[in-house]
Amino acid sequence: MAGEFELIDRITEGLTVGDDVVLGVGDDAAVLAPSGNIVVTTDMLIENVHFRRAWSPARAIGRKAVAVNVSDVEAMGARPSAVVVALAFPKDLDQDWVAEFEAGAVEECRRAGVSLVGGDLSSSAHIAITVTAIGDLDGRAAVTRAGARVGDIVAVCGRLGWAGAGLAALQRGFGSPKEVVAEQLTPSVPYGQGVVAARAGATAMLDVSDGLLADLGHIAERSHVLIDVDSMLLEVPDAVQRVAAATGRPALGFVLAGGEDHALAATFPADGALPEGWRRVGSVRDGSGIVVDGAPFDGSLGWDHFAQR
Amino acid sequence: MAGEFELIDRITEGLTVGDDVVLGVGDDAAVLAPSGNIVVTTDMLIENVHFRRAWSPARAIGRKAVAVNVSDVEAMGARPSAVVVALAFPKDLDQDWVAEFEAGAVEECRRAGVSLVGGDLSSSAHIAITVTAIGDLDGRAAVTRAGARVGDIVAVCGRLGWAGAGLAALQRGFGSPKEVVAEQLTPSVPYGQGVVAARAGATAMLDVSDGLLADLGHIAERSHVLIDVDSMLLEVPDAVQRVAAATGRPALGFVLAGGEDHALAATFPADGALPEGWRRVGSVRDGSGIVVDGAPFDGSLGWDHFAQR
Repeated sequence: MAGEFELIDRITEGLTVGDDVVLGVGDDAAVLAPSGNIVVTTDMLIENVHFRRAWSPARAIGRKAVAVNVSDVEAMGARPSAVVVALAFPKDLDQDWVAEFEAGAVEECRRAGVSLVGGDLSSSAHIAITVTAIGDLDGRAAVTRAGARVGDIVAVCGRLGWAGAGLAALQRGFGSPKEVVAEQLTPSVPYGQGVVAARAGATAMLDVSDGLLADLGHIAERSHVLIDVDSMLLEVPDAVQRVAAATGRPALGFVLAGGEDHALAATFPADGALPEGWRRVGSVRDGSGIVVDGAPFDGSLGWDHFAQR
Repeated sequence: MAGEFELIDRITEGLTVGDDVVLGVGDDAAVLAPSGNIVVTTDMLIENVHFRRAWSPARAIGRKAVAVNVSDVEAMGARPSAVVVALAFPKDLDQDWVAEFEAGAVEECRRAGVSLVGGDLSSSAHIAITVTAIGDLDGRAAVTRAGARVGDIVAVCGRLGWAGAGLAALQRGFGSPKEVVAEQLTPSVPYGQGVVAARAGATAMLDVSDGLLADLGHIAERSHVLIDVDSMLLEVPDAVQRVAAATGRPALGFVLAGGEDHALAATFPADGALPEGWRRVGSVRDGSGIVVDGAPFDGSLGWDHFAQR
């Protein structure tokens, strides 16, 4: 196979989207020119833990690795600026796999509006991917998990339940419904909506990676409030309904507790209008914890990476 | 074993060293307040590729993971500011290993003067570590690999040959000489010297990770110059001599081509004094490539991660 340097050249030809990149790939480090405070976040994708090669094309894995990280930048109300991508893979892996992974990463960077400014390659027994994403707050304050106030509206932007339903379909050996399987392989992050929410006055925000209730629970805990989700406000897409029927699992369970959707969830002051694309799903009340329709939810509250897939 | 969230709490209690950390671990992303342009770099350490558990205590691996990344920040002439650490490990790994790894990472962060502001944990079949480091240029321009000029002095700061000699000792089943083995397990990065070199007018700089000649070759290539290393200026430490004698390999080979030392190498204008701690090893001339005492070096030119350890 090609030597390390040739591969590095290939995978890190880079992609400069923003004018905040002073120096891209090829030196000891990239150089960025932030215009305000920055946010930084890192996430790993491990073969057979976060993805399976039998289920996911390399391109989808490259896209997902970027998407799930940029999602965390959006969740702080920052403008996604740059990513660095570290990839370890077996020596006998088809070079086309690496090329397709790279193409997927670059494609998602374009969608997200971020520059790919660096990377690292290594051999390993199984594929391991780590992406670190940087965002620019452009002078705004970050929207943390700790700012929700009693009386706020809870709202989401993006898809809920799709990725979890897609995983359930794949686990049964099915590649359909295609729309939910595609969402499991590469989540549709609502790029740009983090800044939109911040400008609209969002008081707290995060991305829904562990499941809506589990993640809203993080806001409730950090903000010292109770969050009440109104199940009548939740949409259950047809494809999720079909997976629920086929698996004998409650459809609402996917929406409330399915992980890996990477929608954004935020709290907003009750006296303002929600930004376009955001829909109300509940309310912030005095108290602690998370309830659905005023009562504790009796079901799985999210997905633990250490549980066997 | 403990669930993911408990472990994340433990490993990412974080460490705030600088006052540029606005928000540390615990949210979707950390928030930093840079004072100028920033540099960003990422590097993986993979079990059985970059380290062996049989050779390296967990603490040394944690230290090394931080050190090799911060080294790249130093190499740009930036002040190391923050790191994020992603760790994947087998479910049955002793929790003490993880705790010791974390302690090592935190210890090295203190030495380097960086804040540990985020992380990610996952399960995996083998240990995989990715650290991303961020540095602040404090308003200076970055020192790249491309600025060396004919007539410049080539100088290094830090140890050369130690890590390679340590690896050779370990490969023969020996844990001594202890000083070179320790250097292989955790390189002594000359923290702070990147900024010192930048302030002293360094025209090009990098860290010596692949071997002195291989890395100076990168400066020669990017700067479109010839670099001539003067072997009489190179120190060969006693411990390296001893490993050379025991292995029948030339001692100078470790100094010229041994990898993983993470010394800094830079070019400086000939009319200035070298900063304290820096020593001259060669000259920049008209031409291209790298020579030793005016002639091509007949030996291994560094270490490829895809070559079997």
